[in-house]
Amino acid sequence: MYEKIKEMLENRKFLSIRQQLCDMNMVDVATLLEEFDEDDALRVFRLLPKEEASEVFSYMPKDKQQSIVEAITDRELSGIIDELFLDDTVDLIEEMPANVVKRLLKNTSQEKRKLINRFLQYEEDSAGSIMTIEFVDLKKEMTVPEAFAHIRKTGVDKETIYTCYATDANRVLEGVVTVKDLLLAEEGQKVGDIMDTNIIFAYTDDDKEDVAKKFHRYDLMSLPVVDKERRLVGIITFDDAIDVIQEENTEDFEKMAAITPSDEPYLKTRVIDHAKHRVLWLLLLMVSATFTGAIITGFENAFTVVPALVAFIPMLMDTGGNCGSQSSTLIIRGMALGQIRGRDVFKVWWHEVSVAVIIGAVLAAFNIARIYLFNGHNIKLACTVSFSLYATVIIAQSIGCLLPIGAKKLGLDPAVAAAPIITTIVDAFALTVYFSIAKMVIGI
Amino acid sequence: MYEKIKEMLENRKFLSIRQQLCDMNMVDVATLLEEFDEDDALRVFRLLPKEEASEVFSYMPKDKQQSIVEAITDRELSGIIDELFLDDTVDLIEEMPANVVKRLLKNTSQEKRKLINRFLQYEEDSAGSIMTIEFVDLKKEMTVPEAFAHIRKTGVDKETIYTCYATDANRVLEGVVTVKDLLLAEEGQKVGDIMDTNIIFAYTDDDKEDVAKKFHRYDLMSLPVVDKERRLVGIITFDDAIDVIQEENTEDFEKMAAITPSDEPYLKTRVIDHAKHRVLWLLLLMVSATFTGAIITGFENAFTVVPALVAFIPMLMDTGGNCGSQSSTLIIRGMALGQIRGRDVFKVWWHEVSVAVIIGAVLAAFNIARIYLFNGHNIKLACTVSFSLYATVIIAQSIGCLLPIGAKKLGLDPAVAAAPIITTIVDAFALTVYFSIAKMVIGI
Repeated sequence: MYEKIKEMLENRKFLSIRQQLCDMNMVDVATLLEEFDEDDALRVFRLLPKEEASEVFSYMPKDKQQSIVEAITDRELSGIIDELFLDDTVDLIEEMPANVVKRLLKNTSQEKRKLINRFLQYEEDSAGSIMTIEFVDLKKEMTVPEAFAHIRKTGVDKETIYTCYATDANRVLEGVVTVKDLLLAEEGQKVGDIMDTNIIFAYTDDDKEDVAKKFHRYDLMSLPVVDKERRLVGIITFDDAIDVIQEENTEDFEKMAAITPSDEPYLKTRVIDHAKHRVLWLLLLMVSATFTGAIITGFENAFTVVPALVAFIPMLMDTGGNCGSQSSTLIIRGMALGQIRGRDVFKVWWHEVSVAVIIGAVLAAFNIARIYLFNGHNIKLACTVSFSLYATVIIAQSIGCLLPIGAKKLGLDPAVAAAPIITTIVDAFALTVYFSIAKMVIGI
Repeated sequence: MYEKIKEMLENRKFLSIRQQLCDMNMVDVATLLEEFDEDDALRVFRLLPKEEASEVFSYMPKDKQQSIVEAITDRELSGIIDELFLDDTVDLIEEMPANVVKRLLKNTSQEKRKLINRFLQYEEDSAGSIMTIEFVDLKKEMTVPEAFAHIRKTGVDKETIYTCYATDANRVLEGVVTVKDLLLAEEGQKVGDIMDTNIIFAYTDDDKEDVAKKFHRYDLMSLPVVDKERRLVGIITFDDAIDVIQEENTEDFEKMAAITPSDEPYLKTRVIDHAKHRVLWLLLLMVSATFTGAIITGFENAFTVVPALVAFIPMLMDTGGNCGSQSSTLIIRGMALGQIRGRDVFKVWWHEVSVAVIIGAVLAAFNIARIYLFNGHNIKLACTVSFSLYATVIIAQSIGCLLPIGAKKLGLDPAVAAAPIITTIVDAFALTVYFSIAKMVIGI
């Protein structure tokens, strides 16, 4: 497609390009524009009709949006902002540098500026920050044909018309009615007769992660958002909920690997920012690992007498770390999905210990055989290593499940640097057990 | 709520219970039932009207579904199956043990049994396996009022009526028309005039993960599924796409921690199955770690001369492991979200090496100072450890980014056991570098 458009651009077949682009999905047009250099992208972008241009613009990454805003005229800019949904406009303003924001606001109607100001006040991770105001607002007293007429008149985006909201004179949310309900109703019925008053809703300051969970739990298409007086102020649509779910998952992946989360895509993040997001945790974990070093130093006489002991340190540490990561990953994910609750702590711990007993037995048995066969039939060494391994597996899985649950009980994020912290703690335990047993068994 | 219903149950206030439950969201009723013991849960369940009972049933976990199926009469069972969506029925049949399946099929109409058989033939992870057949099928020739009449008549579930599909006489998909388009159209217009022929669709054998990506990319509410002849055979709704996204994320979390994925919730998985899902990878990684042990043995004379060297092994190994996990996590997630493609390999590697140069410098500088100050002003030891650390960070981040991209290029799953495998490889490199440098610097 790129070659085709590029060729048409060189042959100045602008009308054909416009036709071609309008036949495409605007998401794909936005992706296509990323392949062009800045000048060509701008030329192609300007060929789009106003409404399509605005839609394509909303799907572009931040840096491309900025270069478009900086290159187009005030008239073009104001056309795009007119067509943008309010939540997209607010996102744009939050992300652009100050000089661009100034130009954006200058080209926004006063009424919209007022709304934008209100939206900017919602906390970053709140329901208010991801809601939009393009929804259909009905009254209880409306008849079915009146309701349809109102929907036709307001005619907002397709995702947002199918669930309509009935509000009273003070804009307090009273009920929900779907277009399906309206279609199946008799002409004489009123909105008040058919609306559902058992409403699932969110407050503006609810956490957006909880909102996303509600979407997932109740299979919602949209969710009304109300203020403290239960006045309807906006709605959240399922596509924004999917975005939140993906973001939260990405954050959990990053946190669990001891990375400070960022919402920039990998290749758009500067090297120095990447380094900043990682180095603090690495430093902290490095310092903690020196305690493990101190433990080793404490047992220096053990391994100077039996140097073979040192060779098993990596195996013990890695296996302990892997067992701990397995447990913590399962528990953290289970908690994120709402399958494991705080009160399950004992049940979970017992589960993990039982699993550890089986896994530990398999690994230890394998290990005894291997060391006995390949390390000069040294049964004492084989038993020392294998017994330490067994203990390490049980300790690792206990810490791996208890730490995340404990963190959550203390109000901390269970995912933060889980695996690395657990690995560091398990290392210390594993080496202490290992050298203590070695001293006893081998009799140093 | 549990106490309230429990009390009403004891006082035999069955009508009040029924009223109370019908006012609730059926998802919440399903959760509530889990708190009751088996007998009480069954008694409460039986109080629900047929349609509600079927909905609650579809939200129950597998084990509760089974105990309900085993306890109710054939008549009740056939009532529930009648009301279930086809995709839920198929899921049920796939998950129940053989004797239950027999009873289920016995109580299903012949027509539905035929459909079930067709659905059971779709591959487990295919689009066909998550689609449903409850959709609205229009013809190009229908006028707008005819289309509305058809929608009212077929009147399927609310998530599935808002996007309608126009098919020709051979059931080949020709266009998509939304209820919004129909509402905004003139009465005299035909479906063929207003439908969109630029359709985003999936084939029955497409991977369901790709389907979920399409939902996310295009903000879809539903997606038509066609067979090889482009005949419309079903649709997928956004709520099922959200489920797929969550499942795939859970799988990636589990794979990255070296766990064989399972779709059972944590506490519903038997201990022996938990052990099975983890022990093989642990064994494999344990055996690989013995190579690291062999490397250490090869340098035995180094640490018998300078025992202090051993104390830094955990710090080097853990830091290398953490750096590798950070890189691989970012890359794997970036690939899963489509932000990083195979052809970006050089760009990504350069990015990671640049980050490693900064991070390595910070960690090494900190380390030189610490060892010099707290390990008897031993500048040679400080330099040896810090230089090895620097090299380890660069190696770890290179492997951490190259391995997942390489795996994907080879058609393997980049997430599988990424962090543990990388840790094992990095350990071997780190220790080789460490002892080699030690030999040179300290002159053993």
